Amino acid sequence: MAVHEPLASFTPVKAILFDVFGTVVDWEGGLTSQLQEIARKKGVGDPQVASRLDQVNWLAFAQEWRSGFWAVARAFPRNQDIDDFDIDDVHRDCLRPLIPKYGLEGVWTEAEINEITRFWHYLKGWPDSSSALHKLRRNYMIGTCANGTLRLLIDMSRHADLPWNTIFTSDVLHIFKPSPQFYLRAAGLLRLQPSEILMVAAHDYDLAAANEVGFRTCYVRRRTEDGGGRHVRVGAGGIEWLVDSFDEIVEGLDRIRKSSPHDLLTL
Amino acid sequence: MAVHEPLASFTPVKAILFDVFGTVVDWEGGLTSQLQEIARKKGVGDPQVASRLDQVNWLAFAQEWRSGFWAVARAFPRNQDIDDFDIDDVHRDCLRPLIPKYGLEGVWTEAEINEITRFWHYLKGWPDSSSALHKLRRNYMIGTCANGTLRLLIDMSRHADLPWNTIFTSDVLHIFKPSPQFYLRAAGLLRLQPSEILMVAAHDYDLAAANEVGFRTCYVRRRTEDGGGRHVRVGAGGIEWLVDSFDEIVEGLDRIRKSSPHDLLTL
Repeated sequence: MAVHEPLASFTPVKAILFDVFGTVVDWEGGLTSQLQEIARKKGVGDPQVASRLDQVNWLAFAQEWRSGFWAVARAFPRNQDIDDFDIDDVHRDCLRPLIPKYGLEGVWTEAEINEITRFWHYLKGWPDSSSALHKLRRNYMIGTCANGTLRLLIDMSRHADLPWNTIFTSDVLHIFKPSPQFYLRAAGLLRLQPSEILMVAAHDYDLAAANEVGFRTCYVRRRTEDGGGRHVRVGAGGIEWLVDSFDEIVEGLDRIRKSSPHDLLTL
Repeated sequence: MAVHEPLASFTPVKAILFDVFGTVVDWEGGLTSQLQEIARKKGVGDPQVASRLDQVNWLAFAQEWRSGFWAVARAFPRNQDIDDFDIDDVHRDCLRPLIPKYGLEGVWTEAEINEITRFWHYLKGWPDSSSALHKLRRNYMIGTCANGTLRLLIDMSRHADLPWNTIFTSDVLHIFKPSPQFYLRAAGLLRLQPSEILMVAAHDYDLAAANEVGFRTCYVRRRTEDGGGRHVRVGAGGIEWLVDSFDEIVEGLDRIRKSSPHDLLTL
């Protein structure tokens, strides 16, 4: 297997940019546990409401909420500047139809619906995310490339200990992924050539677009994304490196730095 | 003295944004030491060059370089969107006339001039900066509001251990301070009201503009800025709080959080 051969050409990489939802954080686990917790609190002292909430499969609820987001995201405008975008509005809009569908009409106040909408701000990283990011940032600039909003990603970085050097989002860059200008604007602000940036994602469409403009690419298989990424092959669809964890990224880049230490990022 | 009375009204503050050059970092000390070091290296093995370099007052050189930047910055367009801006270009342009002025014609190669230009990326914080920012970020979002570029401020944050949650710069926001839209775009991206943001600077023009759009303001006296800020008075020119160090900011905000703990930023 020549899986690791492309790594030799990764020497010029100075920054690593990450997709976030599904790639860095476990939205499924984070939403499910927060939904279970608010349901438990809401049911206290009200047996009728408690019984309705007890019947909900919160994992299915979370998965359907995420699917609703994808349906909207697939229709995001391409190659077009956006003036403002608040991901909370999208998440709230996708949440509303689930309430009657899961038999919860009238259970939640508007304030609670807003609180639940913000659950996306307080997701946790996959078990390897935070520790790997802390290691990677010793030798690389690290940042996000996410169709989210800056505020959501700041809240998440504080909650999940994601030590970003910079946060690129749709509202900061005024454009959605996978428009080529998303990646190119990020590279321009970093004052780097696209070939000096490694993009990491658990979604093939994202890496195909990043590679098209010259980014180096790494696909990380995550249980919840792209059917676990079982179909992904190095060399197809702009995917240059394929890993099963962020720890593998740390180890792979350590190896190439040892073979060419002169290209380190100046600190 | 009623200096601390306004603090009671700072309870809603959720983010603290900092001017950087002079406010957070000591450009004078950082430039002088880096200039002395490159001069020492350059003189090794070449007594004639060494003797020319030895005659330079590097502190005066650094101060004149900073003055050159201010002259350009005062002419930055106001209330006008900018497409791109590279602070390295400004610093390089301001460096060039100093070379003949200090008797250094032909001493430095273009590569060295570029290296010296990047000295601004590798300044250190004032002695209280890094530790205070680490403390403040436990309870507030912290970020920059600087007429610099994202890449410079990322390099500096890594070098001087400045743990920003977000970096707002002229190239990210497409506008220069003190245009009102600089501060308002930062507030918009943070999804905060201007009154929920505390702006910290060692320059009165910056705080006057920030306060004009509704930011809370704190003037920090720094030896190298505004003549040490001896003229500054609370209640004049939009200045609401006056301190002599970042440690005072940590202590003051600790006090007001203790008196109204319900307004903490959710983590």
